[in-house]
Amino acid sequence: MKIALLGYGTVGRGVDQIISERVSEAEVTRILELPDRLTDARMTSDYDDIVDDSSVELVVECMGGLEPAHAFIMRALAAHKHVVTSNKAVVAAHLAEFISAAAQAGVSLYIEAAVGGGIPWIASIEKVRRIDEVTSFSGIMNGTTNYIVDAMRRQGAEFADVLARAQELGYAERDPSADIDGIDVKNKTIISAAVAFGVNCTPDLPVSGIRNLTKADLDLFAAHGRTVKLLGRGVRQGGRYAAAVEPVAVGEGTLEAQVPSNFNLMTLDATTVGELKFYGQGAGSLPTGNAIVQDVLDCASGTLRPTYDLSRALAYAPELLRSDYVVRTSAAVEGAEPFDEGALLVRDLAAADARALLARACETDHTSFMAALAQEG
Amino acid sequence: MKIALLGYGTVGRGVDQIISERVSEAEVTRILELPDRLTDARMTSDYDDIVDDSSVELVVECMGGLEPAHAFIMRALAAHKHVVTSNKAVVAAHLAEFISAAAQAGVSLYIEAAVGGGIPWIASIEKVRRIDEVTSFSGIMNGTTNYIVDAMRRQGAEFADVLARAQELGYAERDPSADIDGIDVKNKTIISAAVAFGVNCTPDLPVSGIRNLTKADLDLFAAHGRTVKLLGRGVRQGGRYAAAVEPVAVGEGTLEAQVPSNFNLMTLDATTVGELKFYGQGAGSLPTGNAIVQDVLDCASGTLRPTYDLSRALAYAPELLRSDYVVRTSAAVEGAEPFDEGALLVRDLAAADARALLARACETDHTSFMAALAQEG
Repeated sequence: MKIALLGYGTVGRGVDQIISERVSEAEVTRILELPDRLTDARMTSDYDDIVDDSSVELVVECMGGLEPAHAFIMRALAAHKHVVTSNKAVVAAHLAEFISAAAQAGVSLYIEAAVGGGIPWIASIEKVRRIDEVTSFSGIMNGTTNYIVDAMRRQGAEFADVLARAQELGYAERDPSADIDGIDVKNKTIISAAVAFGVNCTPDLPVSGIRNLTKADLDLFAAHGRTVKLLGRGVRQGGRYAAAVEPVAVGEGTLEAQVPSNFNLMTLDATTVGELKFYGQGAGSLPTGNAIVQDVLDCASGTLRPTYDLSRALAYAPELLRSDYVVRTSAAVEGAEPFDEGALLVRDLAAADARALLARACETDHTSFMAALAQEG
Repeated sequence: MKIALLGYGTVGRGVDQIISERVSEAEVTRILELPDRLTDARMTSDYDDIVDDSSVELVVECMGGLEPAHAFIMRALAAHKHVVTSNKAVVAAHLAEFISAAAQAGVSLYIEAAVGGGIPWIASIEKVRRIDEVTSFSGIMNGTTNYIVDAMRRQGAEFADVLARAQELGYAERDPSADIDGIDVKNKTIISAAVAFGVNCTPDLPVSGIRNLTKADLDLFAAHGRTVKLLGRGVRQGGRYAAAVEPVAVGEGTLEAQVPSNFNLMTLDATTVGELKFYGQGAGSLPTGNAIVQDVLDCASGTLRPTYDLSRALAYAPELLRSDYVVRTSAAVEGAEPFDEGALLVRDLAAADARALLARACETDHTSFMAALAQEG
C-alpha cells in the first residue's frame, strides 16, 4: 500500500523509519513538507500532488494543529483515501465530521496515535466495547506534566526548574501552556470519552492544570500519603456522562503515583472485564510512530476497520464527576474547612463547580492551586 | 456461530453468561459435563456428541488439566473445529502440537484466556510483533500469590493465615501448591515466551515459589525499600533466550510493588514501542470468560487468525537471566556475603544456578527463602 505523510517532524520521521526498516506491506511514496525543507525526492509542498495521486491509498497526518490539518484530512477522505492521524487537537475538534466523511467515502479513519502514543488505548477501548459497556476511564495522558511532577517529587525541585530541564530534554515545548494548563489532556479526554461512551463529547469540559503546583504543595500532600497527578477522567451512568481534566491527589500506594518520568498510564472500567490499565510511552518519535504504523497495518491488511460511532444520545451531566477538593490559596473560600497549613478542604463538589471556585480564588491569589482527593481504593 | 463448551465450572459459566447476555454472533449449543451434573438440555457427558455435531464450528475448552483436555482439543481440531482454550497447563505442554494440528486442519487456535485472565496480553504480544521484536517480558501472572503477598504486606500478617483467608474467599485452591510453588506462573511464562519469542519454549525452567515467605522476610526487604512479588520473566538476546519463575524483591516505587489484591501486571519491552504494561483481573468467572468471548468474536468475525509460529531456532541459554540474590537461611552458602539480619547476598547468579543454590540450602534449612534483587530503574 502506498502512503503519503503530511508532516516530517519527530513523529513523521519515526513513521518513515519504522516503515522502511520493518514493514513490507506499506511504502511511503509522498511527503508533504514546507517549501524550504524539500530534502527528499518524495517531498512536495503542494498538497494537490498528494490528493491527486491515485496510487496513494492512505494519508498519514502528523502535522499537528487545527488548520490546515482539518482541511487536508477532509480532502483526503473526499478523495477516497484512508486517513491515519496522530493529531489530538484536530481529532478532538472534528471527530464526528471525520467519521461521517469517511463513511460517506467508504474509507476508514484511524486515530490510535492521537492518545497515549505507543499505548494501544483506543484499540483496547474498541475491543472492550465489543462485549462490555465502559463505565469510566481515567489516565495520566500527558508525559510532560508527569515528568515535571515526578521530578519535583523525587528530587524535591521547584516547578520552574524542572520545566526548564524538561524543555532542554525536549520533553516540553518552548511554550508549555498546552501541556501544563491541561489543554493536551483535554483533547485526549474528549477523544477517549467519544470512543469509550460512543458520544460526540462536548468540548466544554472543566479543565485545570498544574501551572501553580509548588514543591510545598507536593510536600503537604506527601504528609497525607498522597502525590499529585494530572488526570483526564470520564464517567458514564445510564443516559448521562461527564468528563474533566484536573490535578488529582492520589494515594502513594497506587500505580498512578508510581508512574515515572514521561510515561502514561490509562485505566478503564467495564462491565465484565473489570478494571484494565495500560502503561507505556505516551509520546516520542518511535512509540507514536509505532502506533501510527499499527494503524497502517490494520488498514493495509483490511483486518480492522474502526467503527467509531458517536451517535449515542447521552446527556452531558457535569455533576456526575464529584470529589472532595483541597485548595491552597490565600483567598477566602465559601464552605471550606481547614485541611492543613495554608490549605482548605471543600467537600463533595462537581468538577465544574470546583473549576469555578478555583477561578474565583485566583482572582484574589493568582498562585492558588487545587487538587481533587482521589477516593481511597 | 454455534459453539460447544467443555467444562461448566467458574469459567465455563462466565462464558455462557456473557455470550447469552451480550453476544449475538455466537450461541452455546452444547456443553460437556460430568454424567451426574447434566442439568441443562444442552449438556452431554459424551464427547462424541460434540465432535460429531457438524453444526458446532468452535469448541471452547475450559476444563483445565492435561487429560482429557489434550485429547479433546486434538479431536476437535482433527474434526475441523476451531478451538479456544483457557487451560494454561495443556497449552504450556502441547502448544506446538496444537498449532501444527490446527494448521493441518485449516482451523484456528486461540489462547488469550490462558494467561492473564481478562488482560489482553497474548493479543498484545502478537500485535507488537507485527512491527517489533520483543526483547523481554515479566509479570505478576498469578492472582493468588499476589493476594497473599499483598495482604501479608498491608496487614502485617503471616503466610498461613492469609492463605487460609484466600482459600475462604475462593482466591486459592484447597491444594494451593500450583499457585504458591510457582507451577501456574511457570505455565504462563512458557506460553508467554513461546508467543513473545516465537520459540517452542523448553519446559525446563528454573522455578521457585513463595511457600517459605514470612512476614519477617517482607519486613527485612521493606527496610531496604523493597517488597517481594512472584514474577515470571523471559529475555531474548540474538539467537538465545531464557525464562524463569522466582520471587523478586522490587522497589517500593515501582508499579509492580503497588499491584493490589489478586490483580496481575504484565510488562513487555520491544524495539520501537518501548516498554508496555498491562494490568487487570488475572482470573475469575467474568474476566476470564471475557477473554474467551473476545477470542470467540475474533473467530466468528474472521477478523483475527492468530499466527503463532514457534519455529524459531533460538537456543535456551539460562545464563541470560542473571541477578543478585538475597537468601534467608541458616545453611552455609558458598560465595555469599552478609545482607542483613539472617540474610545473605549472592552476587550475579544465573536464575538456574540460584535455584540449585536454594535447593541445597533447603536440605539443611527447609524454611530457606530466596528472592532476586530487581535492578533499580
